[in-house]
Amino acid sequence: MCRWMGYRGQPLPIETLLYKTKHSLIEQSRHARLGVETFNGDGFGVGWYTDASDTPGVYRSLMPAWGDHNLQSLAAHVVSPLFLAHVRATTGTPVQNTNCHPFRYENWLFVHNGAIENFHDLRRELVLAIDPSLYNVMEGSTDSETMFCLALTFGLRDDPITALERMAGFVEETGRRHGVAHPLQMSLGVSDGERLFAVRYSSTRQSRTLFTSAEPQTLRALYPGHELVEIIQDEDRAVVSEPLGDLPGVWTEVPEATVLTIQDGPDEQRAFQPRSPALAGAA
Amino acid sequence: MCRWMGYRGQPLPIETLLYKTKHSLIEQSRHARLGVETFNGDGFGVGWYTDASDTPGVYRSLMPAWGDHNLQSLAAHVVSPLFLAHVRATTGTPVQNTNCHPFRYENWLFVHNGAIENFHDLRRELVLAIDPSLYNVMEGSTDSETMFCLALTFGLRDDPITALERMAGFVEETGRRHGVAHPLQMSLGVSDGERLFAVRYSSTRQSRTLFTSAEPQTLRALYPGHELVEIIQDEDRAVVSEPLGDLPGVWTEVPEATVLTIQDGPDEQRAFQPRSPALAGAA
Amino acid sequence: MCRWMGYRGQPLPIETLLYKTKHSLIEQSRHARLGVETFNGDGFGVGWYTDASDTPGVYRSLMPAWGDHNLQSLAAHVVSPLFLAHVRATTGTPVQNTNCHPFRYENWLFVHNGAIENFHDLRRELVLAIDPSLYNVMEGSTDSETMFCLALTFGLRDDPITALERMAGFVEETGRRHGVAHPLQMSLGVSDGERLFAVRYSSTRQSRTLFTSAEPQTLRALYPGHELVEIIQDEDRAVVSEPLGDLPGVWTEVPEATVLTIQDGPDEQRAFQPRSPALAGAA
Amino acid sequence: MCRWMGYRGQPLPIETLLYKTKHSLIEQSRHARLGVETFNGDGFGVGWYTDASDTPGVYRSLMPAWGDHNLQSLAAHVVSPLFLAHVRATTGTPVQNTNCHPFRYENWLFVHNGAIENFHDLRRELVLAIDPSLYNVMEGSTDSETMFCLALTFGLRDDPITALERMAGFVEETGRRHGVAHPLQMSLGVSDGERLFAVRYSSTRQSRTLFTSAEPQTLRALYPGHELVEIIQDEDRAVVSEPLGDLPGVWTEVPEATVLTIQDGPDEQRAFQPRSPALAGAA
Repeated sequence: MCRWMGYRGQPLPIETLLYKTKHSLIEQSRHARLGVETFNGDGFGVGWYTDASDTPGVYRSLMPAWGDHNLQSLAAHVVSPLFLAHVRATTGTPVQNTNCHPFRYENWLFVHNGAIENFHDLRRELVLAIDPSLYNVMEGSTDSETMFCLALTFGLRDDPITALERMAGFVEETGRRHGVAHPLQMSLGVSDGERLFAVRYSSTRQSRTLFTSAEPQTLRALYPGHELVEIIQDEDRAVVSEPLGDLPGVWTEVPEATVLTIQDGPDEQRAFQPRSPALAGAA
Repeated sequence: MCRWMGYRGQPLPIETLLYKTKHSLIEQSRHARLGVETFNGDGFGVGWYTDASDTPGVYRSLMPAWGDHNLQSLAAHVVSPLFLAHVRATTGTPVQNTNCHPFRYENWLFVHNGAIENFHDLRRELVLAIDPSLYNVMEGSTDSETMFCLALTFGLRDDPITALERMAGFVEETGRRHGVAHPLQMSLGVSDGERLFAVRYSSTRQSRTLFTSAEPQTLRALYPGHELVEIIQDEDRAVVSEPLGDLPGVWTEVPEATVLTIQDGPDEQRAFQPRSPALAGAA
Repeated sequence: MCRWMGYRGQPLPIETLLYKTKHSLIEQSRHARLGVETFNGDGFGVGWYTDASDTPGVYRSLMPAWGDHNLQSLAAHVVSPLFLAHVRATTGTPVQNTNCHPFRYENWLFVHNGAIENFHDLRRELVLAIDPSLYNVMEGSTDSETMFCLALTFGLRDDPITALERMAGFVEETGRRHGVAHPLQMSLGVSDGERLFAVRYSSTRQSRTLFTSAEPQTLRALYPGHELVEIIQDEDRAVVSEPLGDLPGVWTEVPEATVLTIQDGPDEQRAFQPRSPALAGAA
Repeated sequence: MCRWMGYRGQPLPIETLLYKTKHSLIEQSRHARLGVETFNGDGFGVGWYTDASDTPGVYRSLMPAWGDHNLQSLAAHVVSPLFLAHVRATTGTPVQNTNCHPFRYENWLFVHNGAIENFHDLRRELVLAIDPSLYNVMEGSTDSETMFCLALTFGLRDDPITALERMAGFVEETGRRHGVAHPLQMSLGVSDGERLFAVRYSSTRQSRTLFTSAEPQTLRALYPGHELVEIIQDEDRAVVSEPLGDLPGVWTEVPEATVLTIQDGPDEQRAFQPRSPALAGAA
């Protein structure tokens, strides 16, 4: 079982959320508290946006994250308004950097927790559906990267939520055609550098957990004087697969089959509904 | 430009050929002497057979090979009658273990020096031709691994040389259909654990170099008293993409468009002729 | 908290004990069951003896051991009558290969579970006591490697048990001089390629656990038909910091403050008594 | 033989000098042009200062630098007014991250090209001279890190140039006491985050090369319209062990036995004179 977190808000050193919270993602990679499997790291990754480059940065490593001095330096010096981090627990594909999340294409980043059931049987058919022009985007061998390339194929850059729904619909349809009852289990963090999309969905409707941070004003009321609470601003929002820290009221569970858009102005939340690619037309 | 070597003969500690010869493969990875590019390591790999396991062992690493203590220990302790080693210089695909040679499937090992011209354009079409049952064999993203899976698809396990010729024919045909004048450049080392196949071929008929060691009796006559020469036996044979050592008479160039079979009894050498997969029938 | 195991007996592929037992060391590196800390890997190492080389082989890596294909190949192909394996959980020193166990010098291997309390304060004084001729043996920065070099200084190669007792005495004396009440916590696995020494000792007399496998004849009586039990022979013995597997009667706890010598002929067990280096004479 | 570069000036993405110049340091790590040995990478490191943290960041890796995607991301996103980069070619000590430069202590960074002759014989005596409070700063095993800790011991934080001269004097004195005729060969890049010190010195007075970039106004006159020349400002200065690029007039050789201080206001250049630590008093 993987873990991930996303942040969008005022520019913060990445370390603020990666290392400096109780139950931070790095800490979680040592001691998981929720989740179906005992948890250990098969690779860590973080992707971030800054003004310095048009392309988001990505750091991925197989080193134990808690002892990775390179990551510590990077997390202390990169100040970013939008980043995604991920700790991987392989479901079978090789332990290598190109199988670590986030996956990147142009200005997009993508992290996934969950799995495509029986991926090995479905893999070839799913990969064949990827647009030939995107074929070489794939550098690894995971179900997650395949989902990302399918979402790109189905229009992620034009209409992100619809594309993610088509991707989910296509994976479910393909899986069921191969006799898989519940083909898809996922929480997703996806970004174009402006918006942060968070999806919770599974074919069983018993999806991996997903949480968002409460409104900063709520947090300040609940925890006046708390170090992190004091620095957050109204637009700051985090999404996490497992709560960072123990404080009641800080984390709100994202409902089943939901997609969240964290953006300038009010965030949006709506039902996530896999779409049949057949009905999807041009896809 | 990659470098590789293969050995078949009396069981030897792998280090004998990997470290202990002048211009050994490890030394070559620091100081190349022939070859079209200045040479540096983008990954090292060695595969070997022993009686201890039905599956050949494979060690692949991105560490500089000359400073890799794990490799030194392994090479000193693994005594093998048949092994293949490879130093990689990437032609563009990621620097990661799963892109390092040898590639392995069941009892087969495969190393390659060279390239498929315009591989990025041809990749999807080549991968689609891989037998679906072999699709998940691919863990990396190189042209070399694709060639291996195509050879498996075209019958490597039943008729190795024909399968390699079909693979070459299919790559050339696919390349030419895409307007690539000279699609294939290769020297190959392939083994099933019994025989060692060495191929030198390219569409331009100006292939990367390939050499075999002279007959042991010739070597003993030429270099009486030489340490390595003294220990070799009549059946011992090495194949290398670049000579190990400077001794005249030790290395014989494999002719253009040739496949060599090193085996119990007399070795065989014949012309290597790419075959049209269309004519190849069942492929 | 680290974990280690040692084996001495008929030559076995290392994988037999490393991967193929329930609660094998590799499996333990994911899911610890005993021990004071939640457990995760900060590095893995295995050292082994074979006839192929005078120097034991050592493989050390920071990769998650359960996904390390190099280690799997090595463990399948290296057949050894005596090996030591170790999973590290750092107590503060850097996560790097040269801080992974086993440490090696000439024909000796050394693994340690435990710690020198306040090592950072004592380190310089301990290192100064290492024989100058052994100073460059140290490549890393751990308390464990310092203990090994001290044991070598105090005569490990001539009288191993006495040297280990002097080392322990010297560490305790140095620690207490610096106001550390309980300076030493250790279980040790040490070998010269012939004998396997296992020590359980701590200043508090509440040492980390250590277990030995029962006599093969006992095991065969207890578990007739069990796969592993069937293949073991009378001289085969394993020592582990935590039992491999759940079978009652298989593992015997080594008593507090004890040193075990596993060797040809009857094994020996005696009290382990730290010695004052002052009384130790030449040390 | 190692290579290094330092930059001080307007904040630039590190990649500007690391990747985007002809003969950049990364490119040099593949194809060396000057230098006594054929050159290959045994480790890469970069250290940098930003406003985000009081401690400089350090990234060190054994991966081939030219294929290291983590480094590429970091170099594109970290914008720094002062950084030091280094490619290592080991002179014998292990290939590991903690032996890669830069070395860091508090706000100081240190890179070195060269060697202490017969370091293995002198190592213990040199290390003993390190202030005990700095003993644990050493995490690796190189001559370079020892030189850094000696310079710290001799007052680097108070009077940097004098401390470096004392360090050099102490190394030479120690070496000569052991019969080494020419104990020290070095070019150094050292920074406290404000100033960049560059030293060229060797006991033979035939030191490894060192170059500084010409005055920006000179460069603009020489190369009007050149991309990099256009963006540089009057205070921008680079120091390199080997010129980056071929343009005549861009690089000025630092004279033998010289120390350069690059700082706000006019830079300073003076003779570098090793000092006897005996005369150095407080050291």
